[in-house]
Amino acid sequence: MELVSEDIQLLELEEKFISLKSASGTHSPSMATIQEKMPEIKIRVDACFLSNPYATELFLGYFNKELLETNEIARVLEFYPSQNSVIADLLGEYLEIDPQKIFVCNGAIEAIQAIMHKFVRGKAIINIPTFSSYYEFVNAETEVTFYQLEKENNFKLDPARYIEFVKREKPNSIILINPNNPDGGYIKYKNLKFIIEELSGVVENIIVDESFIHFAFEDSGLELKSILHLTEKVDNLIIIKSMSKDFGIAGIRAGYAIMGKEKVRALLSNGYLWNLNGVAEYFFRLYTRPDFLKRYEVIRKKYIIESLIFISELSKIRNIKAYSTKANFVLIEILDGRTAEHITNVLLIKYGIYVRNCSDKIGLKGEFIRLAARSNDENDQVLAVFKELFE
Amino acid sequence: MELVSEDIQLLELEEKFISLKSASGTHSPSMATIQEKMPEIKIRVDACFLSNPYATELFLGYFNKELLETNEIARVLEFYPSQNSVIADLLGEYLEIDPQKIFVCNGAIEAIQAIMHKFVRGKAIINIPTFSSYYEFVNAETEVTFYQLEKENNFKLDPARYIEFVKREKPNSIILINPNNPDGGYIKYKNLKFIIEELSGVVENIIVDESFIHFAFEDSGLELKSILHLTEKVDNLIIIKSMSKDFGIAGIRAGYAIMGKEKVRALLSNGYLWNLNGVAEYFFRLYTRPDFLKRYEVIRKKYIIESLIFISELSKIRNIKAYSTKANFVLIEILDGRTAEHITNVLLIKYGIYVRNCSDKIGLKGEFIRLAARSNDENDQVLAVFKELFE
Repeated sequence: MELVSEDIQLLELEEKFISLKSASGTHSPSMATIQEKMPEIKIRVDACFLSNPYATELFLGYFNKELLETNEIARVLEFYPSQNSVIADLLGEYLEIDPQKIFVCNGAIEAIQAIMHKFVRGKAIINIPTFSSYYEFVNAETEVTFYQLEKENNFKLDPARYIEFVKREKPNSIILINPNNPDGGYIKYKNLKFIIEELSGVVENIIVDESFIHFAFEDSGLELKSILHLTEKVDNLIIIKSMSKDFGIAGIRAGYAIMGKEKVRALLSNGYLWNLNGVAEYFFRLYTRPDFLKRYEVIRKKYIIESLIFISELSKIRNIKAYSTKANFVLIEILDGRTAEHITNVLLIKYGIYVRNCSDKIGLKGEFIRLAARSNDENDQVLAVFKELFE
Repeated sequence: MELVSEDIQLLELEEKFISLKSASGTHSPSMATIQEKMPEIKIRVDACFLSNPYATELFLGYFNKELLETNEIARVLEFYPSQNSVIADLLGEYLEIDPQKIFVCNGAIEAIQAIMHKFVRGKAIINIPTFSSYYEFVNAETEVTFYQLEKENNFKLDPARYIEFVKREKPNSIILINPNNPDGGYIKYKNLKFIIEELSGVVENIIVDESFIHFAFEDSGLELKSILHLTEKVDNLIIIKSMSKDFGIAGIRAGYAIMGKEKVRALLSNGYLWNLNGVAEYFFRLYTRPDFLKRYEVIRKKYIIESLIFISELSKIRNIKAYSTKANFVLIEILDGRTAEHITNVLLIKYGIYVRNCSDKIGLKGEFIRLAARSNDENDQVLAVFKELFE
């Protein structure tokens, strides 16, 4: 069979995209980078991008009204933003956490880096599959031990088995992402509390990344279940929180971490003075305002419900398996013999749908892609394409 | 003599401001922080803030037209910005520097922190007076040796004496800010080149902070004289560059550093993945565009000339001494017996002029304030107040 010109073009674009991806390390190239380097690709849905699009809309409404229409934006961009501790004070009041325990950061990734460089020493246990920066950002004095989450068990963490493993391995630090990225596996509040209580005397740092916690729930009220306040009793518990996902503002770079006072002091006495930009400062001020939060809560729940429906529809499609998730994304195993790389390329180049090829994820055996829930309309487009592609 | 109510109010405000200042460590509280905590103070001129106000205007013109009017800002705030190395590629092309030698950062302060934490070990020589972060951000393995710039010599660095000192002390790293902050002292290109050539075999890191270099000049054409390209020959030369001052965009947080490839690789393999926000990415893209640069060059020179006139007028005022400067600020010694703290408070509270009280600067003996040149109109207000206050 001869290759028709469409196939040849597809192959050429595939090759180009593969080299672009390899330049981005263990992360996906951003949509902006793809658009710049491969303008021939028209992305319709960025399902690689893990964020609540309704929250973006809500934020932009405030931003337009309060910064643009007033021209306050000029001041925000011209002058130095507040120092780190000024924002921590604000945040502390809202979170009801001692501000001296809060490290405000230029995206959660800055907190991950700071913590992995400065406080993690010796052995660190990281569950796999995971977000690669946790093992990539360790310092030279750290040895990483992976704890495999089993595909056969839907990547669910078994608390008793995990506790036993940690007690046997006696690491310096353990890292838990809840819900986990890339599989969306969720550890219930009571189980996580139990793990923390059992292990706080065993390890030096318990690091819990709650960047996707706003999408998780345990009851039909969809109430938020964060372990934030356990930091009051457990001084070696470190919580890391991105604002990019739940608030849909990855371009702003905003996050925070809660940890022992002496740790925050060590970080701030030695750096991180003006690590927030002016727009991030505006966001954090907005984040503590009741009018904003009331409206945010409505769209948080709306997005959770829509994501639930989307993922349950996806689960019905043959030849793929959608793993159980409590995040705003779903890990999908391809069962028809095609590779994750091929499917990712076809989705992007032919359909304009950008998904995360998980081939580079340590601890994933099989062909996996990760798919984010987006707006209702975008989800419908994705569903239609997946039906065409797999059924 | 009884205190009248105005005096009492002044004293109360002074006390409040002193406690605000002490909460900001060795830096001044930002204007935003003062306005928030002390709304009774009306700041008319922020002469603490070292930036070209005309460059802010120029940037905001582009920002309004290209991001706001097009609503492109929504995309900039919603999605992840490009990874660090993507911006380095762009910048490399414009600067004609190998992009693998460029570390793009969230404000120059991030580069200062990264370099002082990661590459400076053992003895570091820092000239005083200086920008405090250089000695505050050293790691536990570093011992700081100060090299005193003499007031009697107008804080000018004597190359021969400095080279001799470094050769005798044999440090791991030396740090030079050119022009220096807070005195504005300038090391001529040929002298700095000589120092680098003499010492590149003696020390492991030669760190030169050129954050204020856009305001310096050596001829009547006011041409820029950067040592940037010496990094091609001298692999242990590290250049640090803030964009906040020359481009008037401190709220955006943008800077870069040039250093050996293996150093950039060490930083990026272990962190700093998405350390630029979306607006900073837009700025860097703009920074490499000929249309923007052409217009910037005009206002860079306009601002230098206005600053020259302002500082020469200030120099004529009795009871103060304005030290020679090639930066956009001037170090002023108060000679009438009043303290820098008192003058700073009176200027702020009574006249709404915010200047930098230099009492906390190591290596400054006497009463000093630092004063930034602002727009022509603001400079005139400052001159009038200074005449009233000192003559």
